[in-house]
Amino acid sequence: MTIALDAMGGDHGAAILVEGAVAAARDLGTEIILVGRSGLLNSELKNAGGDGLPITIKDASQVVSMEEAPSDSLRKKKDSSVRVAFDLVKKGLAHAVVSAGNSGATLATAMFILGRIKGVRPAIATLVPTLKGQSLIIDVGANVDCKPHHLLQFGIMGSLFVREVNRKHVPSVGLLSIGEEGSKGNQQVKKAFDLLASSDLNFVGNVEGRDIFRGEVDVVVCDGFVGNICLKLSEGLAEAILTMLKTELEGSILASMGYGLARKAFRRFRKRVDYSEIGGAPLLGIKGIAIICHGSSSPKAVRNAIAVAHNLAALDLAGKLEASINSRRDFLRIV
Amino acid sequence: MTIALDAMGGDHGAAILVEGAVAAARDLGTEIILVGRSGLLNSELKNAGGDGLPITIKDASQVVSMEEAPSDSLRKKKDSSVRVAFDLVKKGLAHAVVSAGNSGATLATAMFILGRIKGVRPAIATLVPTLKGQSLIIDVGANVDCKPHHLLQFGIMGSLFVREVNRKHVPSVGLLSIGEEGSKGNQQVKKAFDLLASSDLNFVGNVEGRDIFRGEVDVVVCDGFVGNICLKLSEGLAEAILTMLKTELEGSILASMGYGLARKAFRRFRKRVDYSEIGGAPLLGIKGIAIICHGSSSPKAVRNAIAVAHNLAALDLAGKLEASINSRRDFLRIV
Repeated sequence: MTIALDAMGGDHGAAILVEGAVAAARDLGTEIILVGRSGLLNSELKNAGGDGLPITIKDASQVVSMEEAPSDSLRKKKDSSVRVAFDLVKKGLAHAVVSAGNSGATLATAMFILGRIKGVRPAIATLVPTLKGQSLIIDVGANVDCKPHHLLQFGIMGSLFVREVNRKHVPSVGLLSIGEEGSKGNQQVKKAFDLLASSDLNFVGNVEGRDIFRGEVDVVVCDGFVGNICLKLSEGLAEAILTMLKTELEGSILASMGYGLARKAFRRFRKRVDYSEIGGAPLLGIKGIAIICHGSSSPKAVRNAIAVAHNLAALDLAGKLEASINSRRDFLRIV
Repeated sequence: MTIALDAMGGDHGAAILVEGAVAAARDLGTEIILVGRSGLLNSELKNAGGDGLPITIKDASQVVSMEEAPSDSLRKKKDSSVRVAFDLVKKGLAHAVVSAGNSGATLATAMFILGRIKGVRPAIATLVPTLKGQSLIIDVGANVDCKPHHLLQFGIMGSLFVREVNRKHVPSVGLLSIGEEGSKGNQQVKKAFDLLASSDLNFVGNVEGRDIFRGEVDVVVCDGFVGNICLKLSEGLAEAILTMLKTELEGSILASMGYGLARKAFRRFRKRVDYSEIGGAPLLGIKGIAIICHGSSSPKAVRNAIAVAHNLAALDLAGKLEASINSRRDFLRIV
């Protein structure tokens, strides 16, 4: 598998991204094409010790900034790193794209260059760590204003993802709402409840905010506005809790005694809740594989996102998603 | 100040609630009327050592269950504990209601008996602990389908609450969305952004999920669907993180060494993130004071909710809210 990495996206510059690519190529043997300004990438690749690894460079003269409007980037930057990366997939020269750049622009470019599965609203899915393992939240930001039948599509795509990737034969699907009964929720969610309940998914009903991290269901369905807020809230709260707890521990007698020992346990714990361990968020519903990473991804996060991209491409997840949607086209059309 | 406590609501029975009332009367000198089945409450009050405290009992023969539809409870249970409690306020015999019962029914009964401030959508506000102190989230569940101008009202009410209760002279107000720019968000939020920006509030713009627990603003405005999910997500995540961390610490060498010492720090930390320390959630926008508590409130949480109710009644918060809305009636009418 060959992965096209948008090596210019992200908050912290190309060096971080190239370092992640080198780790992925070295650890996993993945072939990687770094896309961006070739002069810069050549020197970063040398700095990162990339000689002898299956990494090549594809020049792209433009960069989409993190603030740029997606439509502007599509119109004005035909030689941007993210666009050239998707062109490589379109031409069959790569099997997937990984980008830590402007996620709106990545989404728009993916839809423009590769296209979407007919009738589907592409959505961003994220695995989060829970008390029981992992759960997938879909959508976490691609669609801020959704119709009920879009939530049904997210359930179908999320369910297939968890079956294929996490090897759960019949994943449970829950709809994020504010009470367990189908009568609870806003208008959008109440209608989506009925659609999901009449589908062939293993739909277990509504789940509440507190159920997500308890791991009550394999797939949590929500619109991209709610999902994005939940995801960022979780990051912020986890950070805040660790900060508060550290302050408490430092203020205690532990500081002078067992703190060094506690740190080890802390580190294992951080690893467990660290989103970067899991890798980026796949964009589902397009005709191809794309992984969207956090703008402030670490080299490890980039490495893991490349591993996920490799895995999804090897599974032909995009083809399977399209087949899954097609097999339900009659049901979805009724919607 | 006299507080009417719905002594039949909640998940764990009257004993817990009476215990909280006894603590409030003893610690704060608050006069309390326990509302519910007088036989039961008399014996619970004796059990809890309530003799000699300023606590009286008002009989109410019916109880609204946690699952009951609010409209059913209003129609069929005219002698329910929650309704009799609000009747006491209506008649001037109490200054505020505290209930850990069915929150939908509490909300509906408050609006039916006391009425709402003209033109206002009442909302539930909750203080949450942050890295910088406390922030108020409004609405956390009263209104699942909101118009943009309702979000403006929440901002006005939340701002006044923080000014009066937390003594912040000019509270900062943020709108919960998925990006800092006013152009980010769903249709509802984008329109609310413009309304808030043209108001006389100290509106600082959109805030993201991760900003809430960092304490970036004093008041976080959102609709009740999003707010309720955020609140429950936070509870669930905090719980999950503590569970995971405990597992890690127990698995480490700390278990045999400094764990006893670590526990003290843990306890102080729990106290800091414990919602029950803060008390219940005030219902703002009605003509009176009502505090909605978690169904599974501990005696301490009930005690603290009574303290909050006492404080809000003493401040005449409901009157001040009405004056604040009235002074902006021209602006709100434009909306």
